Amino acid sequence: MPPQVGVGVGVGVGAVTAYALRASRQSSPSYGLTTSALIKQTKRAHVRQFSLFSRPNASKRSNPTKAARWLFPPKHIARALSGKPLPQRRSVILNFAYRTAALLGTGFGFIGILFAAFFLYDSTTYKESALTFGDCQVSEAALNPRRGGPKNLPIIEALLDDDDSPDAKKKKSKPRLVILGGGWGSVALLKQLNPEDYHVTVISPKNYFLFTPMLPSATVGTLEMRSLVEPIRRILTRIGGHYLRASAEDVEFSHKLVEVSQTDSRGQDVRFYVPYDKLVIAVGSVTNPHGVKGLDNCFFLKDINDARRIRNQVMKNLELACLPITADDERKRLLSFVISGGGPTGVEFAAELFDLLNEDLTRRFPRLLRNEISVHLIQSREHILNTYDEALSKYAEDRFARDQVEVLVNSRVKEVQEDKIIFSQKCEDGTILTKELPMGFCLWSTGVSQSELCQRLAAKLGSAQNNRHALETDTHLRLNGTPLGDVYAIGDCSTVQNNVADNVVTFLRGHAFKQGKDPETVELHFNDWRGVAKDVKRRFPQAAAHLKRVDKLFAQFDKDQSGTLDFGELRELLKQIDSKLTSLPATAQRANQQGLYLAKKFNKLAHAAPGLRANEIRDGDLDEACYKAFEYHHLGSLAYVGNSAVFDLGGGWGVTGGLWAVYAWRSVYFAQSVGVRTRVLMAMDWAKRGLFGRDLMSF
Amino acid sequence: MPPQVGVGVGVGVGAVTAYALRASRQSSPSYGLTTSALIKQTKRAHVRQFSLFSRPNASKRSNPTKAARWLFPPKHIARALSGKPLPQRRSVILNFAYRTAALLGTGFGFIGILFAAFFLYDSTTYKESALTFGDCQVSEAALNPRRGGPKNLPIIEALLDDDDSPDAKKKKSKPRLVILGGGWGSVALLKQLNPEDYHVTVISPKNYFLFTPMLPSATVGTLEMRSLVEPIRRILTRIGGHYLRASAEDVEFSHKLVEVSQTDSRGQDVRFYVPYDKLVIAVGSVTNPHGVKGLDNCFFLKDINDARRIRNQVMKNLELACLPITADDERKRLLSFVISGGGPTGVEFAAELFDLLNEDLTRRFPRLLRNEISVHLIQSREHILNTYDEALSKYAEDRFARDQVEVLVNSRVKEVQEDKIIFSQKCEDGTILTKELPMGFCLWSTGVSQSELCQRLAAKLGSAQNNRHALETDTHLRLNGTPLGDVYAIGDCSTVQNNVADNVVTFLRGHAFKQGKDPETVELHFNDWRGVAKDVKRRFPQAAAHLKRVDKLFAQFDKDQSGTLDFGELRELLKQIDSKLTSLPATAQRANQQGLYLAKKFNKLAHAAPGLRANEIRDGDLDEACYKAFEYHHLGSLAYVGNSAVFDLGGGWGVTGGLWAVYAWRSVYFAQSVGVRTRVLMAMDWAKRGLFGRDLMSF
Repeated sequence: MPPQVGVGVGVGVGAVTAYALRASRQSSPSYGLTTSALIKQTKRAHVRQFSLFSRPNASKRSNPTKAARWLFPPKHIARALSGKPLPQRRSVILNFAYRTAALLGTGFGFIGILFAAFFLYDSTTYKESALTFGDCQVSEAALNPRRGGPKNLPIIEALLDDDDSPDAKKKKSKPRLVILGGGWGSVALLKQLNPEDYHVTVISPKNYFLFTPMLPSATVGTLEMRSLVEPIRRILTRIGGHYLRASAEDVEFSHKLVEVSQTDSRGQDVRFYVPYDKLVIAVGSVTNPHGVKGLDNCFFLKDINDARRIRNQVMKNLELACLPITADDERKRLLSFVISGGGPTGVEFAAELFDLLNEDLTRRFPRLLRNEISVHLIQSREHILNTYDEALSKYAEDRFARDQVEVLVNSRVKEVQEDKIIFSQKCEDGTILTKELPMGFCLWSTGVSQSELCQRLAAKLGSAQNNRHALETDTHLRLNGTPLGDVYAIGDCSTVQNNVADNVVTFLRGHAFKQGKDPETVELHFNDWRGVAKDVKRRFPQAAAHLKRVDKLFAQFDKDQSGTLDFGELRELLKQIDSKLTSLPATAQRANQQGLYLAKKFNKLAHAAPGLRANEIRDGDLDEACYKAFEYHHLGSLAYVGNSAVFDLGGGWGVTGGLWAVYAWRSVYFAQSVGVRTRVLMAMDWAKRGLFGRDLMSF
Repeated sequence: MPPQVGVGVGVGVGAVTAYALRASRQSSPSYGLTTSALIKQTKRAHVRQFSLFSRPNASKRSNPTKAARWLFPPKHIARALSGKPLPQRRSVILNFAYRTAALLGTGFGFIGILFAAFFLYDSTTYKESALTFGDCQVSEAALNPRRGGPKNLPIIEALLDDDDSPDAKKKKSKPRLVILGGGWGSVALLKQLNPEDYHVTVISPKNYFLFTPMLPSATVGTLEMRSLVEPIRRILTRIGGHYLRASAEDVEFSHKLVEVSQTDSRGQDVRFYVPYDKLVIAVGSVTNPHGVKGLDNCFFLKDINDARRIRNQVMKNLELACLPITADDERKRLLSFVISGGGPTGVEFAAELFDLLNEDLTRRFPRLLRNEISVHLIQSREHILNTYDEALSKYAEDRFARDQVEVLVNSRVKEVQEDKIIFSQKCEDGTILTKELPMGFCLWSTGVSQSELCQRLAAKLGSAQNNRHALETDTHLRLNGTPLGDVYAIGDCSTVQNNVADNVVTFLRGHAFKQGKDPETVELHFNDWRGVAKDVKRRFPQAAAHLKRVDKLFAQFDKDQSGTLDFGELRELLKQIDSKLTSLPATAQRANQQGLYLAKKFNKLAHAAPGLRANEIRDGDLDEACYKAFEYHHLGSLAYVGNSAVFDLGGGWGVTGGLWAVYAWRSVYFAQSVGVRTRVLMAMDWAKRGLFGRDLMSF
């Protein structure tokens, strides 16, 4: 075990250094005396010590053999191991020097040990000879899948690695959990899921999970791309899941088949079905064009490749600006960077870009560039970061003002041309001016909209889906309009429907009918109402906040003071609550919470299901029977705004600060990062930045 | 200064841990005694100590004030600083545990200090507020360059950053040294050049130097791309040089102008001239197509982007192979990797690829893939690594045989098709068979050929250039056919001409004429010959090896035993020497040596030139007058061959070995690496690989 070795060598080094020092003086009398004093003190102990460690005095044996020398290590090591005191000096200075040397020596020795240990470990990571498994077992179904389904495509009922290991074999009988997408939602789900209960297959066009919140840092090289991504296969290893690199095109809800497409090596688009027992749709969202012309002149920031493209474009512009043949106005244009969209992404990119230009550019590029660079942030609302507390927005704006990042609020982009951006700005007096801004680079980061797949599914489900922006789910995250417990949707591609009023009233009405009452005449007394409220709270956790004072509400809506609520009054009451419920934000935080929620529920379902099916369950609603509805807890949001950061802790609480906040901001993401690997890499990158700055290169 | 702090805190932690241990027992009597004994021993010293560090006994002052507590640190720290012995135990075990704790504590404490120190440093690397230089000075010539030259293009006589700093201003008067290319030669030159003597401008389409020998490692993610590159601007900082991102198209030797082209932001090709006093051509070489059809189906490995393309293709094939819909023979094809060319690049790529497949693939991908993967290495010669000692080639081949990498020797590729490669193989019995190999990936790494620029220049210089493969220079690396001391060529794009015979004979003949003798009848006695030999050695250092035994040669070629050599005999002799001289290898090593050579010469020239011009110099040959001719020293070559490495030390000496050799191989490149930054990054990458393996992702 290294530590103990560490001691030996550690002090070894220390003492050696120390001895060097000591050599400068004659061997001091005090030394001999101290020890002798000690020997007097602890005679018995010392006898034992000698026999154990230290070398017997010369008198005892004249010239020790090799073996003996091995048995009795040199004095200073012996001392390190035995408890004998370090030699004493008369001079405090010398004692101090002596200790210092010993301690430094130990410290460096210790580090040396750690290095050695690492190399030892590293040397074990090389596989000397080629691994071969001999013939490995692959089911016929995996090699030649049968055709079927509505479109008579191959149906992937078995995978190539289904028989690779005993564990894998066991899973073949488990329910098939298919997950579309490899973003925050999916990964949270995968990390929480029990390894035994499901046969998991992830289908995504990208074979890595991307740590989106840090993406702006990667655009300028504060972080490396690879530090923000984790291979999905690595994440799947724990639960022995499978991965297919392909994109989902459609879902046959009635056949429980996902239609998947992949372009083969000859560039042809091949399609096939993947069957599921449970399907989780977590395909995220796409950039929102807001119907603006010329977005092909813009850069986006949703993917790791976007980050590289941006990085290269920024470098390209800088290099072009360095050429004396570039005319001056052209140079100004090349160095005018426009960010459209004042959300966290836009703001953080602006901040990172400014850091790059301010910290690194000036070192290596002509000064002229620094003076001609301009960064512009176009925001349609009154403030940037408008989802944050206003104080924080203000702080960010002041910060940017100081950093010479121009913030253009109340401005809507009309068109993006190759070399300029045209936008309309609302002035204080309400008049709307159309302005244009020459630019060499434009980032488009103005919110998200629905992916093609989701649009297709929504259309398919017809009346059950009434939201243009996302797939609607109930509070158990089940996709509305699909058989209960089959299909779930989480993350940016979904939204939780909170139609309390319709839902409850319909239910009560049905209930009344069952009891042979006329719904219109039913009256709820306060107790009934309390029961209803309880039920609402359970089924719509987000509504709970608005149902705190049940009595107050009752009094307020019991217009006729009858001491009872009729359906009309009840509907009014619930409608009011609905109106107060906002839809959940499209953030990593939400996706993460939904993923965890599903994982926990699936873990429960896997075991509870059989038992529950036995007893009679209301509407066969397994999910509701064995797990609570999803409730979103906002933990606050944070943003980097250029050598300072803002934290919105919700409820009007906010923190802003300089460098310490930056470190805090980093630690938050460091902690949230997906695994050890990404954490180590991030740390390395931050160290790199500190040591060498960002490397201004473009490949 | 951290170290000293280190001591304090270090032992602090240590002692604290130790104290925890000690707490388990009553405070031992021996402790008190030891110290008292000491106090007796070193009274005077102790008095000083107390006043300096440790806290006075309670008797002296009852309850110390805050200040006092600060002045007198707690006992264990006091002891660390003063020389008092650590407390004694009766039990050796306990002493040992005590020391162990103390030492571990120190070790960790020490590391803690280092961390803290780094954070302190890091916090100083953030520029709080925006830097502004106010108006910065830029010469008119830089903003609007005048037109001129044969093609009437803008002539860049001043650069944007020529006036940025006093140093930069000084350089404006210095001779303009223009360097084409940013490879090994250029960088070696830049790192050795004196900062004061030249106004340096580097022109290259890539703004980074690439550490080519490690490129194969980057294709599979053993190293990250960014660890192999260093921004040229960073390298230029030391000598205050300038960089233009553009590519040289032509050189007007008579006007001393380089014609440069760059595509502007609108995709148009703009051209301009850069004037020079000294020009260094180091543009390297391009891949050699060997006139084979269908190379657009191949991948190459000369640039960092090639590495990424390869990485993505490998991943793409693996992912496709994972899909059950992929037919089995198609899967086999996708997993058949072909490398054409058995030189170091090809071999090392094969090795790295094998490592990837063997060490990382098997962990995360279906076993079937591992079994169906095949790697093939096609080599035209009899052995791979044929420039190396044969024993080493054999070793490499055996190694590959063991690793199931198929080596196909005596094979010439005829055509590369989208899905297969067609080649002819010579069997033992001399018959030539045409074979074809289905493949999903083909790397083309079969030597280099001349770039367009070099071809153009060679054509321009006509009879002075007679080499189809590279630009010919004399032994002072001056481009043949250009005014002496104007243009130099180094690295892969150049070759040193060793036409001893013509050169010497012509000179002698001229000499004879001057002396009014008939050259045909001139006879050289042994002494004359010795003189000639000396001259040859000086002007053609590579020939020195073959001129060791001057007398032997004389005897051997003095056919008529006349005791003299006539011109005929002399020419024969020199011709024989020529025949023995081989052209220099196209390696990083050679380019590096040539770069260093030029730098040293330029440094000399800058100062020697004026003095020398004064005195009369033979043929105005400044270079020869003040510096020796270039001599190449082969330091050996090395190659990685899959968890083992081969070192060819030249002269038939070679070393092969397993893991230790791999570490040695790494250390060599680690040492040769261009700067601290790349070294640190490389080390980090190797650590990453050890800790997390290669990340199997493709962007």
